[in-house]
Amino acid sequence: MIELRKDPITGRWVIISKERGKRHPVDSRMITDVQAGFCPFCKGNEEHTPPPTLVYYDDPKTGAWSLRVVPNKFPALRIEGSLLRKADGMYDKMSGIGAHEVIIETPDHEIMLADMPVHRVRNVLQAYRDRILDLARDTRFRYILVFKNHGYLAGASQTHSHSQLIALPIIPRRVSEEIDGSTDYWRHKQRCVFCDILNREMEDRQRLICENSHFAAIAPYAPRCPFETWILPRIHRTNFEMTGDLELASLAELLSIVLRKLNAALETPPYNYLIHNAPLHFEDREQYHWHIEIMPIVTHVAGFEWGSGFYINPTPPEEAAAFLRSVRI
Amino acid sequence: MIELRKDPITGRWVIISKERGKRHPVDSRMITDVQAGFCPFCKGNEEHTPPPTLVYYDDPKTGAWSLRVVPNKFPALRIEGSLLRKADGMYDKMSGIGAHEVIIETPDHEIMLADMPVHRVRNVLQAYRDRILDLARDTRFRYILVFKNHGYLAGASQTHSHSQLIALPIIPRRVSEEIDGSTDYWRHKQRCVFCDILNREMEDRQRLICENSHFAAIAPYAPRCPFETWILPRIHRTNFEMTGDLELASLAELLSIVLRKLNAALETPPYNYLIHNAPLHFEDREQYHWHIEIMPIVTHVAGFEWGSGFYINPTPPEEAAAFLRSVRI
Repeated sequence: MIELRKDPITGRWVIISKERGKRHPVDSRMITDVQAGFCPFCKGNEEHTPPPTLVYYDDPKTGAWSLRVVPNKFPALRIEGSLLRKADGMYDKMSGIGAHEVIIETPDHEIMLADMPVHRVRNVLQAYRDRILDLARDTRFRYILVFKNHGYLAGASQTHSHSQLIALPIIPRRVSEEIDGSTDYWRHKQRCVFCDILNREMEDRQRLICENSHFAAIAPYAPRCPFETWILPRIHRTNFEMTGDLELASLAELLSIVLRKLNAALETPPYNYLIHNAPLHFEDREQYHWHIEIMPIVTHVAGFEWGSGFYINPTPPEEAAAFLRSVRI
Repeated sequence: MIELRKDPITGRWVIISKERGKRHPVDSRMITDVQAGFCPFCKGNEEHTPPPTLVYYDDPKTGAWSLRVVPNKFPALRIEGSLLRKADGMYDKMSGIGAHEVIIETPDHEIMLADMPVHRVRNVLQAYRDRILDLARDTRFRYILVFKNHGYLAGASQTHSHSQLIALPIIPRRVSEEIDGSTDYWRHKQRCVFCDILNREMEDRQRLICENSHFAAIAPYAPRCPFETWILPRIHRTNFEMTGDLELASLAELLSIVLRKLNAALETPPYNYLIHNAPLHFEDREQYHWHIEIMPIVTHVAGFEWGSGFYINPTPPEEAAAFLRSVRI
């Protein structure tokens, strides 16, 4: 049973996916076989993952790959079938149609994203772009969620460096909240709220962490957790997947710097990042500005915080940014 | 520095509170002194907490108390001062005015809420009601958030059984989302969405966990995590603090049963509960229905889930409810 269900009060969708819990009844975190000492993402174990949807080769002749994208063995959603929307009395549900893929960032078990050379980081970003562009052709999908869970406390069940993507027939709540908010801002000011934030932060520099030609990394004004960090394109851009090669290289450089700064400042913390992207085929191009949100895990998020939507953060973003600016990498 | 800051995109407020981080720079979870083997909540250690705002006595003559409510020693907000709203360029902030109190549920370090006799549980609920009614007279406050973090993974830094309340000059996001949603539902149907849910769940009983004369416990249709449980008054009620004594005893009975069922089913899991209550002085009385949301912690909430607002739940609520119905306590 895989189903999308809507909470009738708030309109929030959840995936109910027994497949994800198969290996451990109450733990959804199992992405693939985890056997003592065995890693299905490592070079040589390719037959333990489903056939790849994308492979980059170091040397196509020898078959030496540098990155593979494979369907998740315990997917949260299923790719086959048509998208059925159904009433269930007063409730609403949808068939659990979607794609769930794992981006295996390297054949090498030991190297983490933050420690890769920048051209490898660029490869990872390029794989996100390639997969989004491919999956966007499937008209059942409205959104492609790209994210990385690094470390057990961040929800990763594999230590081998990887990211994930989920293609969805709905738009995740945080993104639709951002779209509603930025559309509202646009209606009042005829300006992009993200562009306004960038202008402010580049000017007073209190919350600016670092910048390069195309991107800036900032501590947001109202961060939910200590050292929350956003990376934004400095010029208005709606969709991540429209990023050109030059900009992608620039993003790889800045992402790498930010991850290394967080590692140096917080002793290699677990972290999550998410690409907040415009929905597929989104037409109000002035009203959304894609960006990456990075959340290092330095405190437990108390259940009360995600249950209330109300966050208590002991670290002012000005101090976090100053610390990250000064830290040596 | 204690400040409320608003995210300019989504309108989400966060508390930036350095006070909370004082004892541990990046850990906001410290509620009181934690010294090896010393518990400030225990009988005999009363001078280690600030003077109480409420005390219930077992025997007023001997001073033997059964419950105390004290201001949090490291509050997320400060009670003193006036509520100032300020622009900070394009951003919005407010002075960090509020109350943050700890409900010490028992003088006995060893007994947990689920194991208390029902009249002790009723005492705890009565203390919530008494404190809300008292704090509601302070016109600076718009909402009083009552919650319980049980267990380290749920964010509790003290093992001694306790709950917390935070009085706020704003309405937490989840509650305002619920109010928006239920107002919308009311506009379309002229019925309370929570009453409709109760009717449906009492009728088909698939997701009903247990009930008594005044309350019902259900697994919601679209739960965010395995075994998420809601307790709702069976008759439309807007505000928790208007609950009469008879109903409060009934609620204590059902809450106690639910907590014991969760303990039996999930091997005494860490958990959070939150009272979702109408804001203070809320006038649209038909359009909100207070309830308790209980979240046992059986999987890590991946950062991607709270970052995206999109949840993957491996346990269908029908199965969770059936299991909780059948479990012996």
